Amino acid sequence: MREGAPKAVTAIGLALQEQIEHGLLTCGSQLPAERKLSELFATTRITVREALLQLEAQGVVYREERRGWFISPPRLAYNLMQRSHFHAMVSAQGRVPTTEVISARLQPASAAVCARLQLPAFSSVIQICRARRIDGRLVLYVEHYLNPQYFPQILDFDLTQSITELYARHYDLHYGRVRFEIVPTALPAEAAATLKVSTGSPGLRIERINYDQHERLIDCDIEYWRHDAIHVGVDVLER
Amino acid sequence: MREGAPKAVTAIGLALQEQIEHGLLTCGSQLPAERKLSELFATTRITVREALLQLEAQGVVYREERRGWFISPPRLAYNLMQRSHFHAMVSAQGRVPTTEVISARLQPASAAVCARLQLPAFSSVIQICRARRIDGRLVLYVEHYLNPQYFPQILDFDLTQSITELYARHYDLHYGRVRFEIVPTALPAEAAATLKVSTGSPGLRIERINYDQHERLIDCDIEYWRHDAIHVGVDVLER
Repeated sequence: MREGAPKAVTAIGLALQEQIEHGLLTCGSQLPAERKLSELFATTRITVREALLQLEAQGVVYREERRGWFISPPRLAYNLMQRSHFHAMVSAQGRVPTTEVISARLQPASAAVCARLQLPAFSSVIQICRARRIDGRLVLYVEHYLNPQYFPQILDFDLTQSITELYARHYDLHYGRVRFEIVPTALPAEAAATLKVSTGSPGLRIERINYDQHERLIDCDIEYWRHDAIHVGVDVLER
Repeated sequence: MREGAPKAVTAIGLALQEQIEHGLLTCGSQLPAERKLSELFATTRITVREALLQLEAQGVVYREERRGWFISPPRLAYNLMQRSHFHAMVSAQGRVPTTEVISARLQPASAAVCARLQLPAFSSVIQICRARRIDGRLVLYVEHYLNPQYFPQILDFDLTQSITELYARHYDLHYGRVRFEIVPTALPAEAAATLKVSTGSPGLRIERINYDQHERLIDCDIEYWRHDAIHVGVDVLER
C-alpha cells in the first residue's frame, strides 16, 4: 500500500478522536464515506484510508462489509476472577447478549483436545461451536469441548442458552478451578468467517480449561474475540 | 494489496509449519529470500508475501528490517499469579533477558497517570521508560510511573536492573495486590519505534496498578508487548 502523508494521517485521527471525546460521534455512529472525508480534510483517499486503518488497529473504529466505517462500542470488561459467563457479564454491563449455535455434535477428539481434556487416544468429545454478539455485533467465536461422560443428552437442550447455567440446572455441576491461557493472535479461518472479518485479522484467543466442584476436568473452550471488543481484568491478591 | 492465490498461500503456510514441526527450521532460523521462496513454490512473489504475512499474524515468523524473515522463538509464558519480574521470569525459562533504559526523570504527571496513581492534579511523577529483550530480540516497551514520595533518589540507581528487586533491597517495599488490565491493541508510535516495528502493528498492552505490602498504591506500569512474544496464563482457584 502507498503511504499517506504522515501529518495528515495524524490530523485525521486526532480530529475523529476529539469528536468522539466530545460526544459528537457516539458508539455505532457511521462515519461519512471515505470520499466525503477526503474532501472534508482536503487530502487524498489513500491518506484517509490509512488514518482509518490506524484507528481500526487501535479499536476506535471498525468496518462492516459494504456498509462502511463505524465508531466502535466500548470493550466488554472481562474480569477473570469473577464467576460469570457471557450472558451474565454482558447483561450486567447494560448490553444485550445473543448466541447462535453453529454446530453441536459428538465427534472423534483431535490429539490437541485429548491432551487438554486428558482423554485417551480415540476418545469422543462433544464439540459445540457458537457465535456471540453484543448489541447485535458479532464479537466472539467459541468452540466448546465437553467430556461426554459428564453430560449425557446435552445435545438435546437448547444450546443458545448459557452452558454454565445448563450444567448447574441439569447436571448439578459448577465450575471450580479454571486455567486461562491468553494469546494475542490472528483469527483463524473459521473464527474470521463467523465474525465476518478477513482471515488474519488481529484477535485475542482465550483458552479455558475447566474443573468442576469435585476437581474433575470437565470441559475446555477456545474463545476467539475481535481484538477491539474486549479488555481483560485480573486482580491478583497478595499471597 | 493484490491477493495471492488462496490455495498457494495455504500450501506455503502448511509447508513451512511442517518444516518447523519436524525441526528443519528452528527458532531464529532465517527463511530464504522471498524471490527464492517463489521459485521453490513455483508461485508469484505476491502469493509468497501473503503467506508470510499470514504466518506473521499468527506469530510463526517475523520480519527484521532489511534482513528478511525469521522463525519466531517461543512465546514467553507470563503467569500473572506468580510473584515474578521480567528478569526472573525470562531466566527461569532458560532465556536471556536484557534491559535498556530509554529515559528516566521526574516530570509533571498527566491526568491519566494522576488517575491511575490517585495523585492530586499538578503532581510530579517519576517516569522510567525501558526496552526489554529476550535472547537479544526486542519484545517489550514499558513505561513505569512511580509515586515519588516512596522512592527518594531512585533515579541515581542503575535502572537496567529489576525495579522489583531495587524496591526490596533499598526501600523495603514489596508488591502486594496487583490489578492487571489486558487489552489487545495496535502499538502506539513510541512503543513501535522502540521495538523497531511499524506503528499500528498488533500488540498486547498490559497495565499493572501495584500496591505495596502496606496496601499503598506505589506505582503503575504500562507494558507494550510484541503480539507474538507472549502468552499470558492465569489460574483462578475455586472460591
